[in-house]
Amino acid sequence: MKVLIVSTHPEPQSFNTALRDHGIDVLRAGGHEVVLSDLDAMGFNPVASAADFGARANPDYLVYALEQRHGYEQRTLAPDILAEVDKLLWCDLLILHFPLFWFSVPARLKGWIDRVLLSGVAYGGKRFYDRGGLAGRKALVTLTLGGREHMFGPDAVHGPLEDMLRPLLRGTLYYTGLTVLPPFVAWHVPYVSDEVRRGYLDGYAAHLRGLDQLTPLGFPSLDDFDDRLYPKGRAG
Amino acid sequence: MKVLIVSTHPEPQSFNTALRDHGIDVLRAGGHEVVLSDLDAMGFNPVASAADFGARANPDYLVYALEQRHGYEQRTLAPDILAEVDKLLWCDLLILHFPLFWFSVPARLKGWIDRVLLSGVAYGGKRFYDRGGLAGRKALVTLTLGGREHMFGPDAVHGPLEDMLRPLLRGTLYYTGLTVLPPFVAWHVPYVSDEVRRGYLDGYAAHLRGLDQLTPLGFPSLDDFDDRLYPKGRAG
Repeated sequence: MKVLIVSTHPEPQSFNTALRDHGIDVLRAGGHEVVLSDLDAMGFNPVASAADFGARANPDYLVYALEQRHGYEQRTLAPDILAEVDKLLWCDLLILHFPLFWFSVPARLKGWIDRVLLSGVAYGGKRFYDRGGLAGRKALVTLTLGGREHMFGPDAVHGPLEDMLRPLLRGTLYYTGLTVLPPFVAWHVPYVSDEVRRGYLDGYAAHLRGLDQLTPLGFPSLDDFDDRLYPKGRAG
Repeated sequence: MKVLIVSTHPEPQSFNTALRDHGIDVLRAGGHEVVLSDLDAMGFNPVASAADFGARANPDYLVYALEQRHGYEQRTLAPDILAEVDKLLWCDLLILHFPLFWFSVPARLKGWIDRVLLSGVAYGGKRFYDRGGLAGRKALVTLTLGGREHMFGPDAVHGPLEDMLRPLLRGTLYYTGLTVLPPFVAWHVPYVSDEVRRGYLDGYAAHLRGLDQLTPLGFPSLDDFDDRLYPKGRAG
């Protein structure tokens, strides 16, 4: 497989970064090609703005998604965006690798999502979910967090982690058509022993080696909705 | 009330911005004080990094949350963060005002959350949810989106909007102790008539004038969990 890893963490010496690099070693040892977008090392700009477009379809009023389409067709998009789009369309597997900030991705990674998942390429009109522009490719979320595992789940204080990650897993990755694999989660990272951390490294290696055996997360199919996106069999 | 509005949108002429400014007029006409953080006009930096700290508790290894505490106590945090924290602690009502990007806040606003909701101030240890550092204050989310209302709800293609907003409403605003009011949502904005847009302006005015009558969103209380954050009455 061709694997694109998009990562961010404010501390290069972090366990999160060690986990990422271990994953790269494991993937390469397994014969996969890996490209890394280390957003911090790149100084990646997270802000979607008018500056992303060299020549605008409409210079007087910015509709970001429309300019994404125009700029991609004309190759006038900002070079940092075009480079990431090329990597995205090259890969078979996209890994988003990050520490959980506010039950979500850090702003730097959110900016990669905002700017790189182009309208007209990753999605557009009714091309979303299982009809999304990236259908046929896979996605994996790998995250570290401070919370403990028992704080997540149906009766737990924060509810299921997958529910907190819904806008990412369903609203972003599945939205673009990606097949979303079960996330790999390293819990309570700032507080655990080296032994537990070694366990996470081994667990992640096993997760990556067994990707083909993982059951993807289940989400609705557009086949169950009509042309106006009402559930089929119901009055609109 | 003292109201802090934190807003972002890539197009200053947008309806989203008009809605924000109309809200400011309505609030001021109602006798409230309003401070606006227009993150785009400010050029607000969304990236949480080592550059946020003038003098570090630990210069060799960055633990972002620990340095937030240290930097706030010593007033050595980056001035743009300190200015926002001061506004936050001044307000009775925080309004986050944005266009929905990937079922979430744009990266610029995510960066405000990452950098300004300080550990030790907004939350810390077991000071979260109804014991959060901002308890007693209120929060409102005001958003515009391209999707239509029938695309959200229990049987709808995207499920309930509140479920997509969970990491923001529960995982961020309620996490810090804020009383979270029902969001104001303007649907399908790029495609609707001027008449519908006028309806949104009127609806938002009514929403703001009636804030005291709104029933806050319901979330779990820490009273229902034990000292280790297991549900009370269950074996750990």
